[in-house]
Amino acid sequence: MSASDCYFCRRLAEMDALPTGEVVWKFPHSVAFLGSWQYYHGYCVLVAQTHAVELNDLPDAERRAYLDEMCLLAKAVESFARSHKLNYEMLGNQVRHLHWHIFPRSTQDPDVLKPVWLALDRAERDPELRRRYESGSTDRPTTAAELRRILHSLGASTS
Amino acid sequence: MSASDCYFCRRLAEMDALPTGEVVWKFPHSVAFLGSWQYYHGYCVLVAQTHAVELNDLPDAERRAYLDEMCLLAKAVESFARSHKLNYEMLGNQVRHLHWHIFPRSTQDPDVLKPVWLALDRAERDPELRRRYESGSTDRPTTAAELRRILHSLGASTS
Repeated sequence: MSASDCYFCRRLAEMDALPTGEVVWKFPHSVAFLGSWQYYHGYCVLVAQTHAVELNDLPDAERRAYLDEMCLLAKAVESFARSHKLNYEMLGNQVRHLHWHIFPRSTQDPDVLKPVWLALDRAERDPELRRRYESGSTDRPTTAAELRRILHSLGASTS
Repeated sequence: MSASDCYFCRRLAEMDALPTGEVVWKFPHSVAFLGSWQYYHGYCVLVAQTHAVELNDLPDAERRAYLDEMCLLAKAVESFARSHKLNYEMLGNQVRHLHWHIFPRSTQDPDVLKPVWLALDRAERDPELRRRYESGSTDRPTTAAELRRILHSLGASTS
């Protein structure tokens, strides 16, 4: 199932044409993309391969497999970032296609006690702050390659 | 496993003494509490019975069962609120004990395209706004009773 006017359906259809490092892993039921906000170094967005709006719109077996993939990606992000805490968020307020945000949080972040969205709301309105929140401590292809190495070592399946 | 200085461990230990309507459902692996911010009418917080920080800290079977309970609660909240979209969030930035926030979103909400935390950050700094975001269109015992009725009709298990 797909929707021609859906941002994530288009991104899935075109992913082979994306620059190296944008796609972290193709799981059987989802695809992990490297997220925009690499201030949270290792942040990924896990997009379901099926176009659906809510978790309960998936058949039970597919929903459970997708959630297993989310947990495995979370394990890789935690290992990569040596995070103080992970934030797992499925919102879909703007793009109504199942996707998990997996944000690693660090005690070096002065806003570590708050959801990321307060800082990101400021970053979206300030070009200099935006650049800071988009930049990780390694470049995107290096970050994605390291996440892939970890996922491979964890025995992650591929589609 | 529990931690004596953990807010949610204490809440689980004392839940039989809570006012009617605060506890929505006792699942085998988690407890659904009615959340504070009933502007998002039906908002629940699903607290794992085991004290753990990350999903991957749970044994696989328990983690999957907890996620199944999260999905069943989400189905009940969606049915209750007739929501435009659900937001599922596990943060743990302040309380490091597994808990899911399940927020129903409504097209009547002028901030529906944004995460709830932007409005709630304002509400936490403004007593009048706080009261508005804490108030649902039915009182808390009525809301919890209706959620329980739906969970019962969905065949939810109890601990």
